[in-house]
Amino acid sequence: MSKPSIPKGTRDFSPTEMAKRNYIFNTIREVYALYGFRQIETPAMEQLSTLMGKYGEEGDKLLFKILNSGDFKQAVSAEEWNEKPVTKLAPRLCEKGLRYDLTVPFARYVVQHREELQMPFKRYQIQPVWRADRPQKGRYREFYQCDADIVGSNSLLNEVELMQIVDMVFHRFGIRVCIKINNRKILTGIAEYIGYPEKIIDITTAIDKLDKIGIDNVRAELSASGLDDEAIEKLQPIFNIQGSNEERLNTIREMLSNSTTGLKGIEECEYVLQQLAASQLKNTIEFDLTLARGLNYYTGCIFEVKALDVAIGSITGGGRYDNLTGIFGMPGLSGVGISFGADRIFDVLNQLDLYPRETTSGVQLLFINFGANEAAHCLQLAQKAREASIRTEVYPDSVKMKKQMSYANAIGAEYVALVGENEIQTGTVSLKNMLTGEQSSVTIDELIHTIAP
Amino acid sequence: MSKPSIPKGTRDFSPTEMAKRNYIFNTIREVYALYGFRQIETPAMEQLSTLMGKYGEEGDKLLFKILNSGDFKQAVSAEEWNEKPVTKLAPRLCEKGLRYDLTVPFARYVVQHREELQMPFKRYQIQPVWRADRPQKGRYREFYQCDADIVGSNSLLNEVELMQIVDMVFHRFGIRVCIKINNRKILTGIAEYIGYPEKIIDITTAIDKLDKIGIDNVRAELSASGLDDEAIEKLQPIFNIQGSNEERLNTIREMLSNSTTGLKGIEECEYVLQQLAASQLKNTIEFDLTLARGLNYYTGCIFEVKALDVAIGSITGGGRYDNLTGIFGMPGLSGVGISFGADRIFDVLNQLDLYPRETTSGVQLLFINFGANEAAHCLQLAQKAREASIRTEVYPDSVKMKKQMSYANAIGAEYVALVGENEIQTGTVSLKNMLTGEQSSVTIDELIHTIAP
Repeated sequence: MSKPSIPKGTRDFSPTEMAKRNYIFNTIREVYALYGFRQIETPAMEQLSTLMGKYGEEGDKLLFKILNSGDFKQAVSAEEWNEKPVTKLAPRLCEKGLRYDLTVPFARYVVQHREELQMPFKRYQIQPVWRADRPQKGRYREFYQCDADIVGSNSLLNEVELMQIVDMVFHRFGIRVCIKINNRKILTGIAEYIGYPEKIIDITTAIDKLDKIGIDNVRAELSASGLDDEAIEKLQPIFNIQGSNEERLNTIREMLSNSTTGLKGIEECEYVLQQLAASQLKNTIEFDLTLARGLNYYTGCIFEVKALDVAIGSITGGGRYDNLTGIFGMPGLSGVGISFGADRIFDVLNQLDLYPRETTSGVQLLFINFGANEAAHCLQLAQKAREASIRTEVYPDSVKMKKQMSYANAIGAEYVALVGENEIQTGTVSLKNMLTGEQSSVTIDELIHTIAP
Repeated sequence: MSKPSIPKGTRDFSPTEMAKRNYIFNTIREVYALYGFRQIETPAMEQLSTLMGKYGEEGDKLLFKILNSGDFKQAVSAEEWNEKPVTKLAPRLCEKGLRYDLTVPFARYVVQHREELQMPFKRYQIQPVWRADRPQKGRYREFYQCDADIVGSNSLLNEVELMQIVDMVFHRFGIRVCIKINNRKILTGIAEYIGYPEKIIDITTAIDKLDKIGIDNVRAELSASGLDDEAIEKLQPIFNIQGSNEERLNTIREMLSNSTTGLKGIEECEYVLQQLAASQLKNTIEFDLTLARGLNYYTGCIFEVKALDVAIGSITGGGRYDNLTGIFGMPGLSGVGISFGADRIFDVLNQLDLYPRETTSGVQLLFINFGANEAAHCLQLAQKAREASIRTEVYPDSVKMKKQMSYANAIGAEYVALVGENEIQTGTVSLKNMLTGEQSSVTIDELIHTIAP
């Protein structure tokens, strides 16, 4: 029989990996809760009709679909099987699909439960999502998202709060980051100003490459995407933009002085940056005109987080959207949200070796098993240690000492307790510190005092 | 547009439900960790070949299968579509399925990672599983399992430890339980003793009904299932069994004095009960001859937990199995495991109203929003509160006081802070205790001192 395996693009998580992942999730969870966000969970499976059409045509293909139970054949005749393309057949065979992200299920949740919800509704959600993407390094078919959103409030205080959350989370991780902020309205203003409102994505993409390919190539690219020379000329101030956040915003303000939308975007950015200046973030925040994520759904502020000490893409991102629940027939609900990239944060923490020691330490105390009588005695001592919150094991079999010690090393036990006949008679424990190798004879109370947190 | 919905048998969990569920999972997790169990996670999707044939024919039907991405049509001609039954077609259309329990994925994990694992391997796993069962009250198509298993050790100390875990978990919940213990070998011994080794399940099922239907009906049932009168007569000592665990075991011992298997089972039960007597459990433990769960895979001790103060089925169960990984070509690995029924524990805690107050309390402090200037000031105060670990919100919009107070009530805020112009000038906060209605003027430091844990 060949060794069993798991589907490509999926992962098993070992105890050590789980300890690290829990540290990440718990840190994010704690900070979300500190800001009043409350957790929800939605089912792994949604109605396929809830998911289809929400992620574009490509997205529909990447949905994992669940074959109907029972007689799924009934819905499709042999003729239809022959004639219809898979895209038409799949929804006939499958009523359900695995969630592709947490946003659409959240929108569905808000609409379905609107009578129970008090607005503004601040929710966080940490659950896996599934995508039938081609697996590659760092891209999985099952991965966790860690989202927080506030819906039902237009206030920019929400944006401020989300940036504070980002700052606090990465400060707790010990990861130095740059928080980048932009506003969809500014990008709209620029595209309108140069006379190409429909080219907003081409323009932003080209500007984004300025550092990498230089001004001449950017001009060439813009020209290739259909902009005339006059329009490209009008972008000159942006090519030359520099200075502090304030200076950059002033440059844009001058340029967009006739664009109501553009000025609104600048005002929003300024407000958020001012509030954040007063709250003394631990990390830098930078107004970045080239930041252009999610332009098909974000309508206001956009943000993204880059690690300073590791070359890796965005590790967190988010923004404001104006119409989360419109797709489910409940228009006019604005929201703003953020999503931490747990897998990338995992990699960054690994590369920078930033996991706190206590995060990944497992068992604190292992009792060696010298035989039935000794083990029975140790069982009682172990209970006392556990009552003092010490993670404790009694080795279950009375096998050779060497094997038990190698187990102690494998599980990373901090202390090993040796209790033989002598120790039982004297009411003591021979306690070995596995880090230093030191060994001492102690009572159970002294043992607890030594190890307990 | 009709209101969106979720697949039948699945659930959304609201913030309050999540808080309660997290309390359950965290309690179980903490106790597992105290006993040296370490967490793993496996993917939601397994290869269908890993799952098929592991849960019987009925189980195969209850597996949720994932339609292959891409051109799933290729594998099945129109002729085959016409002719083949769905049971043959499904594995052609689907390579993957959702996990049905945590045991088979765990077995697969152990075999796949055997080179990395140090035996004995103590793992716990808390993840959802999916079954295409007909949904009904208390039975869901997606639900969590909370399993702990030790593999690679035959020692009965593991059984003792699992019972201690059960005792500690329910003691922490405040749920009074009876832990029932039996041994498959005793049941085998009895069936052999009366000459019907193959009728072990019929015999146990009938005995189990003694309390409900009376001795005559039990005899009738046994007779209907094919036992002759002599065999039924031989069961008489069991019908009359009573007394302490020790007395019951003595009765069986006398009866099974010629059965090596039966005596071994009695010896195992006695050992576990003796060790547990010394460790002074908070709950009662009862030898129960009628306990007969999982007879198709358990080979040694069997256990089950019943709540004493709520009429509900088993809320935890487990046992020893001799050949976890044989199905994947790695024979001879014995293990013992336990599984807490989170959904039923949720119901019991609800019915007995046992959730600690702090579990379900959300936001501790809400700052009322009196306008842009006041909110900017409150933002800074809120940061100080959060640094002192107080879960804090600033209401994002400066709407009517009444609306903000109704929000405070809806989210269960413990304190509301009112900071207007006066308070800003005097450096104070008007703090209202939402439980008592008391209001006082305090500094931010006093506020922290009042609320912080």
